[in-house]
Amino acid sequence: MEAGEGVSSATPTEEMNGAGNLMDFLDEPFPDVSTYEDFHTIDWLREKSRDTDRHRKITSKSKESIWELIKSLLDAWSGWVVMLLIGLLSGTLAGVIDLAVDWMTDLKEGVCLSAFWYSHEQCCWTSNETTFDDRDKCPQWQKWAELMTGHTEGAGAYVLNYFLYILWALLFSFLAVSLVRVFAPYACGSGIPEIKTILSGFIIRGYLGKWTLLIKPVTLVLAVSSGLSLGKEGPLVHVACCCGNLFCSLFSKYSKNEAKRREVLSAAAAAGVSVAFGAPIGGVLFSLEEVSYYFPLKTLWRSFFAALVAAFTLRSINPFGNSRLVLFYVEYHTPWYMAELVPFILLGVFGGLWGTLFIRANIAWCRRRKTTQLGKYPVLEVIAVTGITALLAYPNPYTRRSTSELISELFNDCGALESSQLCDYINNPNMSRPVDDIPDRPAGPGVYNALWQLALALIFKIVITIFTFGMKIPSGLFIPSMIAYHHHDWIIFKNWCRPGADCVTPGLYAMVGAAACLGGVTRMTVSLVVIMFELTGGLEYIVPLMAAAVTSKWVADAFGKEGIYESHIQLNGYPYLDVRDEFTHRTLATDVMRPRRNDPPLAVLTQDSTTVEDVETLIKDTDYNGFPVVVSRESERLIGFVQRRDLTLAIKNARQKQDGVVSSSVVYFTEDAPQLPASNPQPLKLRRILNLSPFTVTDHTPMETVVDIFRKLGLRQCLVTRSGRLLGIITKKDVLRHMAQMMNQDPESIMFN
Amino acid sequence: MEAGEGVSSATPTEEMNGAGNLMDFLDEPFPDVSTYEDFHTIDWLREKSRDTDRHRKITSKSKESIWELIKSLLDAWSGWVVMLLIGLLSGTLAGVIDLAVDWMTDLKEGVCLSAFWYSHEQCCWTSNETTFDDRDKCPQWQKWAELMTGHTEGAGAYVLNYFLYILWALLFSFLAVSLVRVFAPYACGSGIPEIKTILSGFIIRGYLGKWTLLIKPVTLVLAVSSGLSLGKEGPLVHVACCCGNLFCSLFSKYSKNEAKRREVLSAAAAAGVSVAFGAPIGGVLFSLEEVSYYFPLKTLWRSFFAALVAAFTLRSINPFGNSRLVLFYVEYHTPWYMAELVPFILLGVFGGLWGTLFIRANIAWCRRRKTTQLGKYPVLEVIAVTGITALLAYPNPYTRRSTSELISELFNDCGALESSQLCDYINNPNMSRPVDDIPDRPAGPGVYNALWQLALALIFKIVITIFTFGMKIPSGLFIPSMIAYHHHDWIIFKNWCRPGADCVTPGLYAMVGAAACLGGVTRMTVSLVVIMFELTGGLEYIVPLMAAAVTSKWVADAFGKEGIYESHIQLNGYPYLDVRDEFTHRTLATDVMRPRRNDPPLAVLTQDSTTVEDVETLIKDTDYNGFPVVVSRESERLIGFVQRRDLTLAIKNARQKQDGVVSSSVVYFTEDAPQLPASNPQPLKLRRILNLSPFTVTDHTPMETVVDIFRKLGLRQCLVTRSGRLLGIITKKDVLRHMAQMMNQDPESIMFN
Repeated sequence: MEAGEGVSSATPTEEMNGAGNLMDFLDEPFPDVSTYEDFHTIDWLREKSRDTDRHRKITSKSKESIWELIKSLLDAWSGWVVMLLIGLLSGTLAGVIDLAVDWMTDLKEGVCLSAFWYSHEQCCWTSNETTFDDRDKCPQWQKWAELMTGHTEGAGAYVLNYFLYILWALLFSFLAVSLVRVFAPYACGSGIPEIKTILSGFIIRGYLGKWTLLIKPVTLVLAVSSGLSLGKEGPLVHVACCCGNLFCSLFSKYSKNEAKRREVLSAAAAAGVSVAFGAPIGGVLFSLEEVSYYFPLKTLWRSFFAALVAAFTLRSINPFGNSRLVLFYVEYHTPWYMAELVPFILLGVFGGLWGTLFIRANIAWCRRRKTTQLGKYPVLEVIAVTGITALLAYPNPYTRRSTSELISELFNDCGALESSQLCDYINNPNMSRPVDDIPDRPAGPGVYNALWQLALALIFKIVITIFTFGMKIPSGLFIPSMIAYHHHDWIIFKNWCRPGADCVTPGLYAMVGAAACLGGVTRMTVSLVVIMFELTGGLEYIVPLMAAAVTSKWVADAFGKEGIYESHIQLNGYPYLDVRDEFTHRTLATDVMRPRRNDPPLAVLTQDSTTVEDVETLIKDTDYNGFPVVVSRESERLIGFVQRRDLTLAIKNARQKQDGVVSSSVVYFTEDAPQLPASNPQPLKLRRILNLSPFTVTDHTPMETVVDIFRKLGLRQCLVTRSGRLLGIITKKDVLRHMAQMMNQDPESIMFN
Repeated sequence: MEAGEGVSSATPTEEMNGAGNLMDFLDEPFPDVSTYEDFHTIDWLREKSRDTDRHRKITSKSKESIWELIKSLLDAWSGWVVMLLIGLLSGTLAGVIDLAVDWMTDLKEGVCLSAFWYSHEQCCWTSNETTFDDRDKCPQWQKWAELMTGHTEGAGAYVLNYFLYILWALLFSFLAVSLVRVFAPYACGSGIPEIKTILSGFIIRGYLGKWTLLIKPVTLVLAVSSGLSLGKEGPLVHVACCCGNLFCSLFSKYSKNEAKRREVLSAAAAAGVSVAFGAPIGGVLFSLEEVSYYFPLKTLWRSFFAALVAAFTLRSINPFGNSRLVLFYVEYHTPWYMAELVPFILLGVFGGLWGTLFIRANIAWCRRRKTTQLGKYPVLEVIAVTGITALLAYPNPYTRRSTSELISELFNDCGALESSQLCDYINNPNMSRPVDDIPDRPAGPGVYNALWQLALALIFKIVITIFTFGMKIPSGLFIPSMIAYHHHDWIIFKNWCRPGADCVTPGLYAMVGAAACLGGVTRMTVSLVVIMFELTGGLEYIVPLMAAAVTSKWVADAFGKEGIYESHIQLNGYPYLDVRDEFTHRTLATDVMRPRRNDPPLAVLTQDSTTVEDVETLIKDTDYNGFPVVVSRESERLIGFVQRRDLTLAIKNARQKQDGVVSSSVVYFTEDAPQLPASNPQPLKLRRILNLSPFTVTDHTPMETVVDIFRKLGLRQCLVTRSGRLLGIITKKDVLRHMAQMMNQDPESIMFN
């Protein structure tokens, strides 16, 4: 599938033509040829073409012997093996992370006497009093103050606990940020913007490397346990992609081909979401809708398999102790009513507004961090935010707990025996009444108290999350986003429905609110709904979830097309060509191509009149990635394109190994070099490294078509011709720059016309 | 996004250049320009480019007045309005069809005395005895024999009922086949192969027309009620697409642009599946995975919305009387065990084998029908198959009932009070035992009886479905496929697990078996699993479903890559470029392009030396869709491509309206025509209809790249050049023909090299 440029492993015809040619010494591709440099863009068509060549070679060999047949079968199955390994490792990692976060979050408050490696819940397993409010009554679990002073009540114990809570939080976050800075600078952040960029064909070496894989889970546990307002979902996707990258290196099929590697990474992202939420199908859809760039149907099935294995592994580890895949399993007994669609849609509107607000505020803060002095003290920033978070979080029971426990609390309906403060309706007098009557009971003081605390928690979470996302430690925002919003609706609707006799299901509102909020922030729709109902098991509530997600997306899109991940990609200046942006301006290829009007002419090579010295000068003087080859400077008829990297290597190789190649040797890109007198220097024949099928468009091609071609075919560059004559070149970065200019109505854009 | 060919509404630069030109009379595109003929392929890039032009025009106008602003807003929202309408209409139609099928299926057996328009179930609503075996005990419902003779028992009544059952079935199927033949020949079959082809860019006029929309639901009801082994799912997709096409005609944005129309149709297909199964998310995935060709993210959200509205409308109509979206709602109480994965995977293997068998047998039968005398008597064939089906189906209670009732019966677990024959365990002595103990009870004679009948039903369904699918009446195969298989597993595993004390959930096996079987036939994976659990509400069973679906796909793919729909596309010879086929042969563009070695040279026009007469001769003598325009026959440098249709219309128009244009007038495609002496005939300037950005590849481009470009950019044709000189042309049909030749190892393919 090559067309973009420089196919180093010659095209088929080349092999046939060149077979008998004595001068053609480049039978073996030289080492390092056709790899990419860091922070460069890959050429999808070329990579795919290389893979097809490889595949053809294996297929034809497989007929030779049994051993080759076995090798070809192994090759065919290696994709599934990689998926299996990714699923197993990411499932295991997710399980371990879940257990570790549970334990370390509880460590901030106290310790289990019977076995210090137990979390609060595991510690009190037998006493069966693990509901939200009664959790202090378990004798095996001792708070630090109790352990150290023997007192459980009183201001002294409270202050000591408070102090130790903050201390632990600071310690955790300091450890996290230090580990990241020392060992794996790429382990910070959620990783999803970078993964999107990498999947679109950009090279960031080390981003998915072994060190990141080692350090990210550890720092993630530390960061989440420190109580910072961040989720482990995005980072888990990053970790899964690191697994994917690791297992790619086992098979040359994947490690040596950037396009195939990206297929594996897409599937790994699906596995990551699958374990983050226990939502295998949601994971596949997330990979498809949100992160992947090139997602053939084959990858869909592979992702599906990886997500399945990962979810299954997680289920076997069973970190939630309920042998369910579902993270926040809820079972509502009431159906929803048609009229409730109105509040659901309102929730969608609020979610959209919140999403817009969050993105704007967070991007503004991140920009400030980038441009001012602040960015120079990342450790201090993390410590400060952790300190403030811990300081403000402890007094409020809803923020003191880990966020996932809180969500599970909020999503659940009140049962008759529920002891949570939120369910503190006055039901003591008539305990004999059936459970269905609960909504009719008047709310007790605990409910109002809880609502008040939730309101504070909501505001606190909203503000702190804006500052947290983008800090230099592993951080995600799925769960914080969720939580922020469903507090909100809880408050509104709890009050709104209290007077009515037939009360609605508050847990459902929490769920819908969470979906709306996440939709506003990330702009996912289908995958979001699937994740939400896989997360909660609420298949009956697809319609409310859909309504909220779509509304939220509409509202948020009205204020700005970009989700949080795209915004961060833009903030970091990655060359990401978003498939969602529609290019509707009336510019033509001729307006975008280089050289521009007053530039020096395009640097080209001729097929039979350039010397080795000329080529070396051209390579030294310019920094282009490749050069078009034309018949002659007069006719300017294009015959091919040669990669800078291949050219450099080929000349170096020839100078070392081939006799008679000197600076004045003529470089030939033609099929046959002419017979020269022996006195002339030996010619250098380089047709092998010439891409004979460079991608061309005419100068009249509208830019919308060019953008479409770049997107769909994954080109790096494209040559511009007019009636067969070479005029210029358009690279992916030219396209991106042009799009940005047209978008911002930059005055510079007029210059082009 | 144009690049393929003939942009009639000139490219931007053209408008600027041509503005001051007096000779340029073609300011308005002539009528009929840029439409396609029947059974032709559309050019996606061109259509999208036209839409962008339209959009730009509206955007720039919207700044002029409030009215224009409102119009532009209406235009922006028209997509969502169309989705809403599609959702409403397809939801309503599906509801009505469900009700009608229920009523008419029961009409074959008897009638409701209290109200003849009630189905059996509705009739006996009050008596609450509607379980599978006791359904005859409802007094309001009378079988025909009872009504006519007063006898309920005895051989006479049985024979009379049997006879009337067959008679009704024959009547229904005769009506169905006659209606289809007289009013809407396109209403036959499942429609999914054709919809796939249409969505890939083929034009089949009338296939989604008003008559089809009117007739298909009616004949579908008749066909399903007649007892033929077919489902209503595929046809519902067809009906939904007809709705989509109907509503497209309300907005010129969609009716005048074939690419935009296909976006709507993709969403309509999602809505169709959504109502067929009550699975909105599964519908979106089905559209994405199975039928759609061009599916941008925007369409994903729209499809989502349409599917939501459709499911919601259906829920409001509530044809299943359980106010659930879910068609076969089941609630299992037992989790599944790890060891059960082995039988699930075995089910997948069986499903894959069955899928292969079914496809092979069905295609063989359809080919025979096509090539022999049999195809000439479609009415007779339908009548015969209906007769045989009814004859064989009546004696077996499992085949007598409608298939969906049977599936619901099979999916459900046995409760303690269930009176179905399948649940006839010997439990009378110890009625007091709790429900959980049921699996331990020994099986009663009824179970063995039921198993025996199910085995027969399975064989019968398998055989009859092969003959039914592809007949000239509306027919789908989702549900028949499902049923066929889960009988099978029922039998195997019921027996296998009987000795064990802790028995597995047979309903789950039925569900997994159904998924495996459907997966084998259609080769869906992700969408299938989502549909299955949306269908049954069994979110807990994702892993078993996934395991079975993936295994089934692997097994079936080992025997042949094509699913039933692709096989039927191939059988009908539609020009469908499957995205799943990988092209791995080493041919080059030069091997595929025309003219071939000994052909006459390519028919080209020159930019300034062809006369009107020459052009007219060329049009008369050839049947190509368009002609490349070159600088001159000597240099052969390509400057553009002109569509045959546009050329014909432009010349006709000019001859009528423009003075001085005669046969000897020279046609100019250059920017400026030279000043000619007055004695010379008036020149005809046609640059307006020239596509200045035709798509080109070099002759060295590997065919895999060409195939990829055709697929991804949706081209109709592509010009082949070598160093700027035009060599030939490759059309979509050339590509398809070449792919077929390479696949079949046809000796003809050698000719190319």
